[in-house]
Amino acid sequence: MRYELYYWSEIQGRGEYVRLALEEAGADYVDVAREPGGEAKMMRMMDDRGVKTPSFAPPFLKAGRLVIGQTANILLYLGGRHGLAPKREAGKLWVHQLQLTLADFVVEIHDVHHPIGSGLYYEDQKPEARRRAQDFRSARMPKFLGYFERVLKGSGGPYFTGRRVSYADLSLFQVVEGLRYAFPKATAALEKKHKRVSAVHELVAARPRIAAYLASQRRIPFNEMGIFRHYPELDG
Amino acid sequence: MRYELYYWSEIQGRGEYVRLALEEAGADYVDVAREPGGEAKMMRMMDDRGVKTPSFAPPFLKAGRLVIGQTANILLYLGGRHGLAPKREAGKLWVHQLQLTLADFVVEIHDVHHPIGSGLYYEDQKPEARRRAQDFRSARMPKFLGYFERVLKGSGGPYFTGRRVSYADLSLFQVVEGLRYAFPKATAALEKKHKRVSAVHELVAARPRIAAYLASQRRIPFNEMGIFRHYPELDG
Repeated sequence: MRYELYYWSEIQGRGEYVRLALEEAGADYVDVAREPGGEAKMMRMMDDRGVKTPSFAPPFLKAGRLVIGQTANILLYLGGRHGLAPKREAGKLWVHQLQLTLADFVVEIHDVHHPIGSGLYYEDQKPEARRRAQDFRSARMPKFLGYFERVLKGSGGPYFTGRRVSYADLSLFQVVEGLRYAFPKATAALEKKHKRVSAVHELVAARPRIAAYLASQRRIPFNEMGIFRHYPELDG
Repeated sequence: MRYELYYWSEIQGRGEYVRLALEEAGADYVDVAREPGGEAKMMRMMDDRGVKTPSFAPPFLKAGRLVIGQTANILLYLGGRHGLAPKREAGKLWVHQLQLTLADFVVEIHDVHHPIGSGLYYEDQKPEARRRAQDFRSARMPKFLGYFERVLKGSGGPYFTGRRVSYADLSLFQVVEGLRYAFPKATAALEKKHKRVSAVHELVAARPRIAAYLASQRRIPFNEMGIFRHYPELDG
């Protein structure tokens, strides 16, 4: 089966967590909106009353007759099919719990540059973003990274569930990579105290399929339209 | 099996979505932090290195040997056990997708009164909250409610998956109830255009177990420590 991933063509965004899972799985997929005419196809599909499970927003994945929305939900589905999550219920729920916590973190990362409204420009909320960034760097970033470090310590490592990589590890890689881009100073300082988190980043980046993906044209570079944006004034 | 729900004792918050599912299921559960000494027990459990699946934050549910965190993840588990979600994978994923979209909405509802930082007081971010509330009422509330109305229209109704109630319908009830409390003017205006959403609220409120729960002492009243807060200045 060839999966169809529907996500914005110019950003990593939330689609990237799905792309990383598909790449690690070696799955056959097409990144629809990046094909000629693909973005229009995505918009038609979002409005299509024939789709019985419409999404509030991209990403969504077409898998045969299924159309699945919400990043963590797509990963729940892919994890079970491609060995990117434990088979037993307890492990499956645990990896999903970690993914949902990473998703909460991603919302907060995004809202640092958009504290007032996602439909407004960053330029229209710069003073508010500066205030939010201060709270983010001093309170939220350490709290989230400290939590993931604690979980990795408890698992025996190097990954969240031990020796086997899961989709949540791939997502942690992406979050660390993004934080390094967006908040290089704050991230460097915090990584010194969270060596297990850094280690997951290094291990995932070195996995053959992920390394090949990151070096390919399929990987969209970070930019100031995505979730992780480098505005030096927000990095303290 | 007697479930143990761990959540803050003085607010509905995110724990309420779990409480509603447990109540509708007629499940045997204890709301641990509301028992004498319970809040301390919850804090000990959060710090307990013996818990292999620690939560970033409450709520979490102890179900036999499982300890499950993240609201939507708890509902995924309970939904399968208590007939609050379809049995087949496609339906299960669809209800979870709706729950995750409701969770996104809940984050935005919370952040209206806390746009700068969740660790700061509302009083320290009032001008920012006013700006965010304007964007929320004019752009985000209509977008989310319009999406749920569209889904209910597509399902044939009255619930998200048709004639059987799911945990996502219980959560939609809670969101509408909370919006009526927090933003009475904006909500009244929008409910006129979203009659199917209002209908789910009425149907859920009238379900015998939910009605009994809402009339009981177990239901904590809304207040200005929770997610849904009534600050008239944010209601336009």
